Amino acid sequence: MTDLSALLDHADTNLDASLERLFALLRIPSISTDPAYKPECRKAAEWLTTRLIELGFEASVRDTAGHPMVVAHHAGATADAPHVLFYGHYDVQPVDPIDLWTRDPFDPSIAEIAGGRKVITGRGSSDDKGQLMTFVEACAAYKAVTGSLPVKVTILFEGEEESGSPSLKPFLDAHAAELKADYALVCDTGMWDGETPAIAATLRGLVGEEFVVTAADRDLHSGMFGGAAANPIHIVADICAGLHDETGRVTLDDFYEGVEETPSNIKDSWAKLGRDAESFLGEVGLSIPSGEKGRSVLELTWARPTAEVNGIIGGYTGQGFKTVIPGQASAKVSFRLVGQQNPAKVRESFRAYVRSKIPADCSVEFHEHGASPAIHLGYDSPVLQKAKIALSDEWPKPAIVVGMGGSIPIVGDFQKTLGMESLMVGFGLADDRIHSPNEKYELQSFHKGIRSWIRILAAL
Amino acid sequence: MTDLSALLDHADTNLDASLERLFALLRIPSISTDPAYKPECRKAAEWLTTRLIELGFEASVRDTAGHPMVVAHHAGATADAPHVLFYGHYDVQPVDPIDLWTRDPFDPSIAEIAGGRKVITGRGSSDDKGQLMTFVEACAAYKAVTGSLPVKVTILFEGEEESGSPSLKPFLDAHAAELKADYALVCDTGMWDGETPAIAATLRGLVGEEFVVTAADRDLHSGMFGGAAANPIHIVADICAGLHDETGRVTLDDFYEGVEETPSNIKDSWAKLGRDAESFLGEVGLSIPSGEKGRSVLELTWARPTAEVNGIIGGYTGQGFKTVIPGQASAKVSFRLVGQQNPAKVRESFRAYVRSKIPADCSVEFHEHGASPAIHLGYDSPVLQKAKIALSDEWPKPAIVVGMGGSIPIVGDFQKTLGMESLMVGFGLADDRIHSPNEKYELQSFHKGIRSWIRILAAL
Repeated sequence: MTDLSALLDHADTNLDASLERLFALLRIPSISTDPAYKPECRKAAEWLTTRLIELGFEASVRDTAGHPMVVAHHAGATADAPHVLFYGHYDVQPVDPIDLWTRDPFDPSIAEIAGGRKVITGRGSSDDKGQLMTFVEACAAYKAVTGSLPVKVTILFEGEEESGSPSLKPFLDAHAAELKADYALVCDTGMWDGETPAIAATLRGLVGEEFVVTAADRDLHSGMFGGAAANPIHIVADICAGLHDETGRVTLDDFYEGVEETPSNIKDSWAKLGRDAESFLGEVGLSIPSGEKGRSVLELTWARPTAEVNGIIGGYTGQGFKTVIPGQASAKVSFRLVGQQNPAKVRESFRAYVRSKIPADCSVEFHEHGASPAIHLGYDSPVLQKAKIALSDEWPKPAIVVGMGGSIPIVGDFQKTLGMESLMVGFGLADDRIHSPNEKYELQSFHKGIRSWIRILAAL
Repeated sequence: MTDLSALLDHADTNLDASLERLFALLRIPSISTDPAYKPECRKAAEWLTTRLIELGFEASVRDTAGHPMVVAHHAGATADAPHVLFYGHYDVQPVDPIDLWTRDPFDPSIAEIAGGRKVITGRGSSDDKGQLMTFVEACAAYKAVTGSLPVKVTILFEGEEESGSPSLKPFLDAHAAELKADYALVCDTGMWDGETPAIAATLRGLVGEEFVVTAADRDLHSGMFGGAAANPIHIVADICAGLHDETGRVTLDDFYEGVEETPSNIKDSWAKLGRDAESFLGEVGLSIPSGEKGRSVLELTWARPTAEVNGIIGGYTGQGFKTVIPGQASAKVSFRLVGQQNPAKVRESFRAYVRSKIPADCSVEFHEHGASPAIHLGYDSPVLQKAKIALSDEWPKPAIVVGMGGSIPIVGDFQKTLGMESLMVGFGLADDRIHSPNEKYELQSFHKGIRSWIRILAAL
């Protein structure tokens, strides 16, 4: 344990240098979903590879059909130490609407916000560059203080997490032997609050679908054709409006197949967290839960499946007005899955529903945007217990075990392809505005995040 | 009548010069709804003013709060001749989606299309620059052959017809004495078919509304908040989907107040036109009437009110996918009115309906985009009868009296503000693609349109 305090001291005294490196990574606009930023994604992968080589890793950029992976290996100090695979993603979400940012999203800075909290600003500061760099900087501390790492470490950084991870499954399949470890460490989740670290034990799955409805073969004048010609906006709106019934339940056939009720003792433990609708939604200017009636917001976001329209467009949407009946309209819809829901079946049920709503003289086209089942790690895993103690030593309050509403498909893929459990630990906060304008990451999350990984690596 | 054949001959032999002038006007991208094109709108007004001065008019560009008007006066050859006010608009619709145009919309040309028909291509070729120039060129023929005009003519060209005509009513109010004539000639309508001219006797009114729903104060991650936070896309879709019931009727309270059933003899005359759903909708790739059940397409588009969503947008609509619950979503909705429907009441009923659908923790904002009541001219007006004969002399088939689905608010304003009836004659065809990519105007419409006005002016 003497080593541990030297390591933690090193993280403290070298924080400025750690921040400088994070800023360099944040300045690269690695937006994976937009083909215009393809060279920037590669640049982020190359930057990380160079850094990992400096830390003694054998690291390289690996090409895929999409954006490249970064794979790195470090043998660690002793041959019989466990072998961990650390996962993070270097790609980020688009920045629109850009006019709502108060600072260039790719010009990171340290800012002070309400309550005197210091934050790191910029796209990717929390999701996921800031998070993955907490681990890289923990490795840097070990390298500087001990010359090596306490365990055998493989690192996998992905560049397509924000765009459905199309290359990930093939890459894992092709390099299963190289990537297989005793377990994975995944840093893409959040804390319970600024003082309480959290380990995620459940993760919702995701099905992404886009559909385009075509009616007339051209845009029509609504005076000349209005009242007689099919309006694809009406069809798309009708489809979206019909996804939920009055009680907030999703109406698709067999949608709830595989969904289990959360055990009452788990629900009780969540109820004790004191997170009610007002506090949960109040942070974003809302107050009334919008989903299934009679369930708490934690249950709605951690343990219940959803259908959400993430984008809709049709007709004239610029300034002013245009009396047009467009030829096409479209929407992007995602489903969050829990328990044993089957992504392929959900997709098929959705498509059948949409097709049933298309008039005989119109047509519909579907585009698939990713699929992953929900996963549920054991509450009693030993790795989880060790990490819980290490995190509780670092932070003001003891670590808790929670559910996660978002999808981290990699965790399902690690389980399915590599037969490997994942430990999900992260230091994001609910108000980090990930995927939104003015994303930030607490300076404390970054600093104590580095210290947390130092402790977890020591405990393992 | 010797004069008439000399005038018609002049129109024939000078067609190329007439086309050159039309092309010069079509080259000016006078898109009124987009503030970026404000200087171009003025340029179009100035071009027309210059041309009218050449023809002996006392003409000037008149400033308004928006785009300018063109007003021109010509005393005519004899003091006791009738006084007509000719109306057209020099502004055009936006050109998006620009990638569907096969040629620059502001680089007009003569093209040959299916069946050997020659057409004038470009935005505004049919709506309304090509149409208004038929009248200007008819005046040019009179000026060249007779040195004057057979009647007293006032011309009013507007530059905001495609964006709700905000300045028109104040302008008519302020210049009522100057603009008042015995009746108006309005050239912004179409033919029945390529051989049959038409005079419009009814016109639907229009109410334009835009509403913006705000839920959370930022864009949210659908994993973190999905199932708990209100999704404004769902709210907007629900509102749009609820505008019609299963029979295609509009659901707004009191919406059908003032709507009268079309007399059966009128419906019979329309039935004889042989315009069924398949022929009407087949031109644009459709076949099934989408509006109120049990009514013909002519009744649906000429004599029934509608609600159409002309634009909808919310969330991520770019390439790829983004699992976002947006803070806002919005739609643009227009209502076509008939009979005695009151635009103000329709707007209020719509807003009350929308407000009733907004959850207590969300909000809605409305933007008004124009309002005009429906109008119905007398079938037995003497001016209409004279024009019917003149048009029947020019074209292969006799002129017919029809209804119009689109709104021409000016006709209502002439009636209300200036106590003046309007004769609506135009030479557009249903497949002119007005408001759409690849707008065109038949060369024959332009040529025989000029000849038609020469005949109508002679008949008056």
